[in-house]
Order: sequence, then structure tokens, then C-alpha cells
Amino acid sequence: MNLLKKLERYKTATERELRRYISEKDPKELYELMRYHVFAGGKRVRPALCLLSCEAVSGSYKNALPIAAAIELTHAFSLVHDDIMDHDDMRRGKPTVWKKYGEALAINVGDGIFTKAFETAFRLKNIPNKNKILENLSRSILEVCEGQAMDISFETKKIVTFREYIKMANKKTAALIRASTELGAMCGGGSKEEVQALKKYGEKIGLAFQIWDDYIDFASEKTGKTYGSDIIKGKKTSIVCHALEHANETQKKKLVKILETPAKRMNKELILKAAGILEEIGSIEFAKNYAFKLVRDAKRSLKDVRDSRAKEILLEFADFLVKRED
Amino acid sequence: MNLLKKLERYKTATERELRRYISEKDPKELYELMRYHVFAGGKRVRPALCLLSCEAVSGSYKNALPIAAAIELTHAFSLVHDDIMDHDDMRRGKPTVWKKYGEALAINVGDGIFTKAFETAFRLKNIPNKNKILENLSRSILEVCEGQAMDISFETKKIVTFREYIKMANKKTAALIRASTELGAMCGGGSKEEVQALKKYGEKIGLAFQIWDDYIDFASEKTGKTYGSDIIKGKKTSIVCHALEHANETQKKKLVKILETPAKRMNKELILKAAGILEEIGSIEFAKNYAFKLVRDAKRSLKDVRDSRAKEILLEFADFLVKRED
Repeated sequence: MNLLKKLERYKTATERELRRYISEKDPKELYELMRYHVFAGGKRVRPALCLLSCEAVSGSYKNALPIAAAIELTHAFSLVHDDIMDHDDMRRGKPTVWKKYGEALAINVGDGIFTKAFETAFRLKNIPNKNKILENLSRSILEVCEGQAMDISFETKKIVTFREYIKMANKKTAALIRASTELGAMCGGGSKEEVQALKKYGEKIGLAFQIWDDYIDFASEKTGKTYGSDIIKGKKTSIVCHALEHANETQKKKLVKILETPAKRMNKELILKAAGILEEIGSIEFAKNYAFKLVRDAKRSLKDVRDSRAKEILLEFADFLVKRED
Repeated sequence: MNLLKKLERYKTATERELRRYISEKDPKELYELMRYHVFAGGKRVRPALCLLSCEAVSGSYKNALPIAAAIELTHAFSLVHDDIMDHDDMRRGKPTVWKKYGEALAINVGDGIFTKAFETAFRLKNIPNKNKILENLSRSILEVCEGQAMDISFETKKIVTFREYIKMANKKTAALIRASTELGAMCGGGSKEEVQALKKYGEKIGLAFQIWDDYIDFASEKTGKTYGSDIIKGKKTSIVCHALEHANETQKKKLVKILETPAKRMNKELILKAAGILEEIGSIEFAKNYAFKLVRDAKRSLKDVRDSRAKEILLEFADFLVKRED
């Protein structure tokens, strides 16, 4: 049975929880738009990790459902706002909220989904450490905002070190994935050691996820993604940050020039040239190996968690992260 | 002693709570911007109402401080996002966040302040009905989002009835003011009747505040505000909604035409003409009396709350609302 099949049960439970929870009709300018975005077909990876972590410490996944849904809604709201900030037109094959309904409604819809995230989290019942869980959740979301602020500021910085990039990605991407596993384990009543182990696992796979994302931008063209799309956008990915830090003066000059080329003046030749420089420096290979190492660390951190079907799936999931090509 | 002097103590306590609470340094692209907006000199009306309501039911105002601060932060975040939506350049004599730092950082700063609002609310300690308070808070914020969605949709509607306007204003403006008094009373351990009374008081003054805001747009020019600024923007205020509902065909045609005139082609003559029509229909007088009635109702709803200095200030505050000219 493949991994996605194994995750189906968690996805269905999350979907049901979210549907039940965002059911308001009026005003449709808020709720229809919230549903347009939330039910656009996400993979529900974060809630699945949350529910699995709950089960991995012998809890019933139902106890973690409100937090799993809250984390998914947090992720969803951040995407609505990110799409405005990045001027992205499409998401999951559909126009983004701001593109379809305008910026004002999109900002407001993001705020509405965000509010729902907290409302959902408050539904946690019979959990003795509820206060700690809620505090951890809001602290994690604040980290996402911190990471986003850093990422925006990177755009106008000439050089961003690999270390700065990792700090940013740990906040912007990994914090919410770490919250998924850590809070799942807390909802399941895990011991201090178990919670710590699952927290570490989440941290590592969260960062691996982001680095791998940067890596597959240079994977073979069969993935359907535009080869080198991050180069076209001039993004400071982990690969670019590593390269700029280790480039000689000639390489740096060439690379910066290509990254600063406006998207509409980009062409295949320039992208291949940039990719060539990144390969020369060894940055693409470096990122790939870095992601592999993170996954190894993530899996190792689960050694103190007792064996279970949930743990098996978590281990498999970590491997899956650095195999996927989209 | 004037009212503002009496409120000073509550403002200082709120200010201290907020300062202590938003003290992070790094990344400055998030926290410096959050402070830029939050400490730009707000009047802290909502927290004052919250703390007063707590005292009015014989609670110590310190018990309500986390909720008072959370409500102020909610108000603050909504202003950051509203300014982007409305393309407003200035607030409290300073450039708005998006104007000064760009839209992307501004959306993110709003999200950060919003997260802090919840984080602050979680700090409620030793309050038996904490769950109910948090649920009420998030429900109130969702109402603000609902009101905002309605308000945005009004822009493209030809006719908005006075009733629809009231529904919108009850959500967009009054919901958070109602939350201030209701949750303040809950934090103070008020009886069911006391909480209900202060809830009603908040609802009424919240709506009165908005209607009076629409009214003073036509007050004498000594207020410093541009006379008829809402007309220039073509806004569907309570006065305009009332007028469009009661206008004859000629009046309606003239009024709609002026409201649809782009701001840069507006002039004094057109504004005075619009004001003339609104007066003819009686809408300006209607709004004024409507606000007066709301204030009377608000004060009456406090009759079952035992006499105290806090209650006195709340009564005085209601009167103040429909005297202010800015």
C-alpha cells in the first residue's frame, strides 16, 4: 500500500472537521471565499503529521483533530496572504483569491480563515495541557510571520548567507510542521521525551521539505514544473545563498546579473547558465545532500518512540519527502 | 475632572501591558514595524471600556488586562489591513504601515499583531470561564471580518438599505466594542445579568460611535476634518443609505451621480449640493437622533448594574461619544 493511501484516513478526518467547521452562509463575500480557498484540494500534510504524532504516543487521533484543523487553517490563511504579497496568480490550478476577488476581499478572507484557526483550536477538549498547546501554537504562528518578514527583506539584500537562509526557513516553513508533530504528541498525552522526539522530527522534516523544494527546481523537466523557476523570479533559495557565499568574484558577478534580470527578459540560455554556475560551485549537490542529512536526523530522532504503525508511516513519510518531484 | 483625565489610569495600564508584551527585537522587519503601528498614539478606548466594565462588576481591572490588550491589538491589526484595503496614506499624522514599508510587509505586520492578540488573550489567569471568553473573543473578531466583507461589497452595490448598513456596522464596528464591555464584565466575575447589561451597553455605544462618525462628517468645519470627506470618497454611510432609501427619483439620481464622481473631480459645490439633498431628505438629522437614541438606550441598559465610580464613567463616556467632533 503506498503512502498516500495510508494517509487517506487522516485526510478524510481533517476534511470532515474543516467542512463541519466552516459552514456559515452569510455574508457570502466572506464564507464562500473562505471555502473557495480552503477546499481547493490541499494535501493536508500538516494535519496528517499532527494526527500521526498523536497516535505515535498512543493517543486517539480524535483528540488532536481541533489542533490539526487549526494548523491547516493557519497554513491556508498564510497562503492567501502570501499569494497577494508574491503577486501569484494561480494556486492548485485555480486563480488565487486576490486574483479572482480582488486584494481587499483577499486580505479579509485571510484574516477570517486565521480567526477560524484559533476558534478551532479553542475546541480542544479534555486535554490537561491545553494552555501550553495554545501558547505553543500562537508562538509557532508568530515564527511564521517572523520568517515571512525575513524572506521579504531578503529580496532587497545583495547577499544572504546560507545560515541566514536556514534561520528564515526554520521559521517560515519548518515552524508550523514542527508544531504539527509536537502539538499532536502533546494532544496524545505523550511523555516529555516523546514530545521532544516528535518535535525534533518535525523540525528536521520541515526544513528538509523546504530545501528539497529548492532542489527540485533543478530536477529533470519531467516534473512539469518550469525548470529553474526560482532563478526566473530571482529568488534567494538555499541553493543560491550557498552559491553566493562560495562563489569566486567572476561567478558571483555572473550569477547576480542573471538573478537581477527581470522575469520577462529571462530565457532558457540564461537559466542554463545560472544552473551551470550553481553546479560548478556544487550548491545543487550540497542542497540535495543537506536535505538527505536532515531526513536521516529526523528518522533517528524517532528512535526513542515505541514502534507502532503510526511511527512506521512517519518514517516512510520522511523518506518520501526527499523522493518527491513536485 | 474631565473624562479623558479619568481614563488616563486605564490607558497607562494598557500601554504598559502592550509595551511589556511586544518587546521582541529580531527580526526588526516584523517587530519594529509592529511597534511603529501599535504605539502610534491610539486613544485606547476599547481597553478602557473593558477595564471599566470589569470594575463595574466589582472585579479588579488587572484581571481583565490581557483581554483588554488583546482587544486593542485586534483593533490595531484590523487598522493595518484596512489601510491597505482603503489605500489610506496617513493615520494619526504618520504614514500608514503599507505606505511607509510596502504592502507585503504591511500584510505580514497585521498578521503578526493579530497573532499577538491571541497570545495576549491566552495569558488570562485564574479566570474560571476562560474558555467562554476566548470563544467569544474569536467569534467577535470573525464578526469584524464579516462586517468588513459586507462593507467592501457595498462599494459595488447601487443601493444599500439603512437596515443593511446597521447590520454591517454592528459587525464591523460595534462587535469589538461590545466584546470589550462584555468580556471585561466576564473577567470581573459579573453575574449573568451584569454581563448582559454591559454587553448591551457596548453594543449600543459601538453602533452610536459609528453613526456619530458618519454624522460629524457634516459637522461645522472647525473640527479640522474635511467637510463631507465621505461624500468625496463616495462612501455608503448610514446617512447616504438612509437618504437613498427615502429619496424621490430626482433626488436619488442627483445624489448617485455626485457619489459616483471620482474624488479628483470633486469640488466644494458638489459636496454642498449633496449635503443639501441629504438635509432635504432629513437624513443628517435622522442619523444624529439615531445616535442620541442609541446612547440613551446604552445608558438605560446599565440601570441594573450597581452604582460605582466605574459605572459613572461609563455613563459619562456614552454622552461624550455623541458630543465629540473629531
